Amino acid sequence: MRYELYYWPSIQGRGEFVRLALEDAGAAYVDVARRPRGMAAMTRVMESAELKRPPFAPPFLRAGELVVAQTANILLFLGPRLGLAPKNEAGRLWVHQLQLTIADWLVEVHDVHHPIGAGLYYEQQKREARRRAGDFRDSRLPKFLGYFDSVLESDTAFHYAHLSLFQMMEGLRYAFPRAMKRLEPEYPRLVQLHDRVSRRPRLRKYLASKRRIPFNRQGIFRHYPELDG
Amino acid sequence: MRYELYYWPSIQGRGEFVRLALEDAGAAYVDVARRPRGMAAMTRVMESAELKRPPFAPPFLRAGELVVAQTANILLFLGPRLGLAPKNEAGRLWVHQLQLTIADWLVEVHDVHHPIGAGLYYEQQKREARRRAGDFRDSRLPKFLGYFDSVLESDTAFHYAHLSLFQMMEGLRYAFPRAMKRLEPEYPRLVQLHDRVSRRPRLRKYLASKRRIPFNRQGIFRHYPELDG
Repeated sequence: MRYELYYWPSIQGRGEFVRLALEDAGAAYVDVARRPRGMAAMTRVMESAELKRPPFAPPFLRAGELVVAQTANILLFLGPRLGLAPKNEAGRLWVHQLQLTIADWLVEVHDVHHPIGAGLYYEQQKREARRRAGDFRDSRLPKFLGYFDSVLESDTAFHYAHLSLFQMMEGLRYAFPRAMKRLEPEYPRLVQLHDRVSRRPRLRKYLASKRRIPFNRQGIFRHYPELDG
Repeated sequence: MRYELYYWPSIQGRGEFVRLALEDAGAAYVDVARRPRGMAAMTRVMESAELKRPPFAPPFLRAGELVVAQTANILLFLGPRLGLAPKNEAGRLWVHQLQLTIADWLVEVHDVHHPIGAGLYYEQQKREARRRAGDFRDSRLPKFLGYFDSVLESDTAFHYAHLSLFQMMEGLRYAFPRAMKRLEPEYPRLVQLHDRVSRRPRLRKYLASKRRIPFNRQGIFRHYPELDG
C-alpha cells in the first residue's frame, strides 16, 4: 500500500505525528502537499463534492479508496498496519487513549500562543498569551509530563504513541527551552524515551533529512522567549 | 455486561456523551460517582497503584477487567457493543472521526469561558473570555455547524456521533441562545437531527428523568449573557 498524506507543507504541525509513524515503519508514502502543485491537489480533495466523508481539516490520509482524517484516528488506522500497535483490542484502546491525551496536550500547547482565536495573529493576542503561558508552564505542563512519565513505567512494547511522545519532547524543548530545562530532571523516563526514539535507525535518517521540516513560528510549537518564563 | 461509568457527579460535561449512548441503547450501567460514597470510589480507581493503564482524567469506563478513558475512545469501544456503530472498519473510522471533531469543538466551547486556564475561575478571565467569545461566535461556531450540517446529508444510518451532535445542539442552545437563534436557520439538517434524536423513546425518557443533570455554570456549556453577543 502506498499511502498519501495530506498536510500543510511548511510546518510539522499535526501531520508530523503521522509522518513519524510512516517514516519509522519505512512505509511507502507521498507527502502530497509538498510536491509541485501539491496544495492545489489537497484543496481539490477537501472541496470535492464526490467525497462522501470529507475531513474537517488536514491532516488526512488516503489509503486506496479510504480517506481518514483526525491525527489520532489516522494512527489508529495505521498502527496495526505499520506494526506500531498491540495486537489485542485492550492494548489498542490503551495506545489510542494515550494518543488522545497527547492530542489534548497539543491543543493546550497551541493555545498558549493563540488563547483568543486561531484566526488571529499571535501579535493580536500577546497580552493574553503571556497570561496563558504562565498557567501552562506552572500547572498544565508538569501535569502532562508527570502523567506520561508515570505510565511509561509499565508500558514496554514499542508503539506509535511513543513516537508522538518523542515529538512532544522535541517540540516542547524548542518552544520552552528554559521551562523544559528546569522540569526535565523530574521526568527521566520521558527523557530516556526521547533518546531511545531518536536512535531508531530509520527515524535517525529521517530526522537528518530534508523531509523533516524545521520547527518555525508558523507551527504548533513556537518559540517566543516572552512565553518561556 | 454491566458497565461502570466514572465521571464528576454534578455536571453533564464529557460524561454526558457516554451516558447518552448507554441510555439510548438501554444498556445496564452504574453512574458510579453519583452513588453514595461514589466520589471516593472514583478517586480510589484513579489513584490505584495496581491500575497499569490509568486514565489522565474522567470520564472513564470499566467493563469487566478493562478500564477505558477518553470520551471518544469509550464510544469507539461501546459503539459496536451497543449497536450504535457501523459494522465495517471504514464506517467505524468515519464515525470516530466525527466524534473526534466534536471533541475538538467541545474544547473550543469550554475555552470560551476559560481562555487562560482551566484551573482559574471564570471571574479571573472575564475580559479574555469576552474576546474569545466574539471569535467563537463569528468564526468557529459557523464553521463547525456548517461542517456537520453538510456531512449529515450523506450520513443516514444512526450512530453514536449523532447522539453527540444532539448534545452539542442542546448545549449550544443553553450557552448561546441568541447566537444559536440567529444561526440555526442556516443549518436545517442539524436542527432536524436534534428533533429526531430527542424523540427516540429511551432517550426521551432519559431526558425527562432525574438522571439527566441540568445544565449549570460548573459544566462545559455555560450561559453567561455577556458571552452571547
